Amino acid sequence: MGNLFTMLTVWADYGQNALVILDQTCLPNREVYLALKTAEEIWEAIYSLKVRGAPAIGVAAAYGVAVLMQGVEVTDFESFYREFVKVKKYLESSRPTAVNLFMALDRMEARLLRHRGEGVKDWKRVLREEAEAIREEDAAACKRIGEWGVSLLRPGMGLLTHCNAGHLAVSEYGTALAPVYLGQERGYAFSVFADETRPLLQGARLTAYELQKAGVDVTLICDNMASTVMKQGRVQAVLVGCDRVAANGDTANKIGTSGVAVLAKYYGIPFYVLGPTSTIDMGCPTGEQIEIEERAREEVTEKWYARRMAPEGVKVYNPAFDVTSADLITAIITERGIAYPPFGGTLRMWKEKTF
Amino acid sequence: MGNLFTMLTVWADYGQNALVILDQTCLPNREVYLALKTAEEIWEAIYSLKVRGAPAIGVAAAYGVAVLMQGVEVTDFESFYREFVKVKKYLESSRPTAVNLFMALDRMEARLLRHRGEGVKDWKRVLREEAEAIREEDAAACKRIGEWGVSLLRPGMGLLTHCNAGHLAVSEYGTALAPVYLGQERGYAFSVFADETRPLLQGARLTAYELQKAGVDVTLICDNMASTVMKQGRVQAVLVGCDRVAANGDTANKIGTSGVAVLAKYYGIPFYVLGPTSTIDMGCPTGEQIEIEERAREEVTEKWYARRMAPEGVKVYNPAFDVTSADLITAIITERGIAYPPFGGTLRMWKEKTF
Repeated sequence: MGNLFTMLTVWADYGQNALVILDQTCLPNREVYLALKTAEEIWEAIYSLKVRGAPAIGVAAAYGVAVLMQGVEVTDFESFYREFVKVKKYLESSRPTAVNLFMALDRMEARLLRHRGEGVKDWKRVLREEAEAIREEDAAACKRIGEWGVSLLRPGMGLLTHCNAGHLAVSEYGTALAPVYLGQERGYAFSVFADETRPLLQGARLTAYELQKAGVDVTLICDNMASTVMKQGRVQAVLVGCDRVAANGDTANKIGTSGVAVLAKYYGIPFYVLGPTSTIDMGCPTGEQIEIEERAREEVTEKWYARRMAPEGVKVYNPAFDVTSADLITAIITERGIAYPPFGGTLRMWKEKTF
Repeated sequence: MGNLFTMLTVWADYGQNALVILDQTCLPNREVYLALKTAEEIWEAIYSLKVRGAPAIGVAAAYGVAVLMQGVEVTDFESFYREFVKVKKYLESSRPTAVNLFMALDRMEARLLRHRGEGVKDWKRVLREEAEAIREEDAAACKRIGEWGVSLLRPGMGLLTHCNAGHLAVSEYGTALAPVYLGQERGYAFSVFADETRPLLQGARLTAYELQKAGVDVTLICDNMASTVMKQGRVQAVLVGCDRVAANGDTANKIGTSGVAVLAKYYGIPFYVLGPTSTIDMGCPTGEQIEIEERAREEVTEKWYARRMAPEGVKVYNPAFDVTSADLITAIITERGIAYPPFGGTLRMWKEKTF
């Protein structure tokens, strides 16, 4: 890890048997670290988005179960495993749509089962090791995403990003922001425009915060200003993360992403989607099959505000994600490389690992 | 005026010699009416956006000067006129870029000068009459804009609008919303999506409010959700107002308008600009010559919020307007009719009144 990241966001403190997280709901005003020692505290932190970002949730859950199992004092595997499954199922219920949460906990379970014949000290050790491995692989994947991504960029470029797929969401380099951080380490002097990303303001609260902290030249804009900065010629590439990529390359990401993609196409600006191959869902043929979560109206009318900003009783439509058509995407960048349209073949190859 | 509008926004109360306005800064939470009796109070109300919307500012200034002059007790025209000019110049300084403010006050002055030979009672009467005439012509122009506009729409259509160019900004029907109100009177059952319009939230605070109050089916969305509702086929036309239209049809309007226009083009949805011909500036050949006002960073990072929503010291770009290229505009609709591309000829004809 370079000097860029002066804050850790998620780690295990086995001295006090706690999962320690940077509480993202307090950003950008205060850096509050929470030491979570019970399953209930960890569940609540994931549920209430104190730790957020798909990979970060997976890492937090893995560390969380490792930390919780350190305190289990039994000597037979069945009892230890029964307790493990109880904790796992409980944590899985905190954000039931987060695929990384399930993947990380499944990996922890598989590792534990491979050591069934050993003793309680070993079971605890392999859980610690596996959680660390998940975090390290996540960080390594992010760095590779960054390397592929930065190969498409040139020093001095203006970049635009939407929502937060950076250091706070993922280990170390993040996904969409990984090329920015690598460029920063190499003196590329990018100028980054961060869409504030209504209604939850991840761009204003998190992306602007983490880029500023890493010394990157970042300018905050409202979502509806992206067209203007593109028209002014101040953006040479758009970098966004992804929540789910369908087999044809259609990409679900934070609400507003598809609009940015349309603008980029109109202004002739490359639009890059960055994320780990774990985000590619070959079981989902196109974006049509991706169901979009609709969230509470209060996020639009009231949240963050000192007073209501819309009339009482007004109808609100508040989808959390949108789907960007593959034909608006210049390239999809994962830890395995860069896919260009048509995406289907490359995505399938990556998932089948036949290369 | 139909039954649609249960609230007046600006009027003169000559009983107490006050300009009465609905304080738009208190919406949508409270309907506060202010009776403004001094030049300073009127100046402050315009300056601080308690009354806003280009035509509404013109009407407020005309009523304002009429109200203030009722109390002037002199009998010679030169003294009366000197006082008039003093008040006029003072009110003009409240929002120096608002063309309607100057136009309305110039008209009041021209009318007064035509009655130089009469007495003080007549001077006061003609000022009252002229202010009323300005308001009535404004309302009539809006209604004509609405008639032309609604002729392009069909019952049951989904419409999308950005910012507020409705009843609150203009007399009665508004401009961009005039076709919506006429359609409402005629049982057209439109569904309107109102962009919240960051950072000042005129869509959430004002458009959602006035449409809801008039019984229109309105749904509030964040600016970055426009792409999604368009993609879902829920929008058949976009209606926006305008702050300045260049001779070639390039249109300056609230920040975000150009992005909505790009989206509309991409999704094959007609994009209509609505406003009075007074907004057309033949002295401005293209949008390139329109200077864009940049506003305070705090509007993005702090305004309305219970706490800061962006890190301390972060750079912010906050342009108040953007320019939509004429080639993204399906038609420009004024009180004189509908202009289709290329716009130059029709706009010139309208301004020269050679038809």
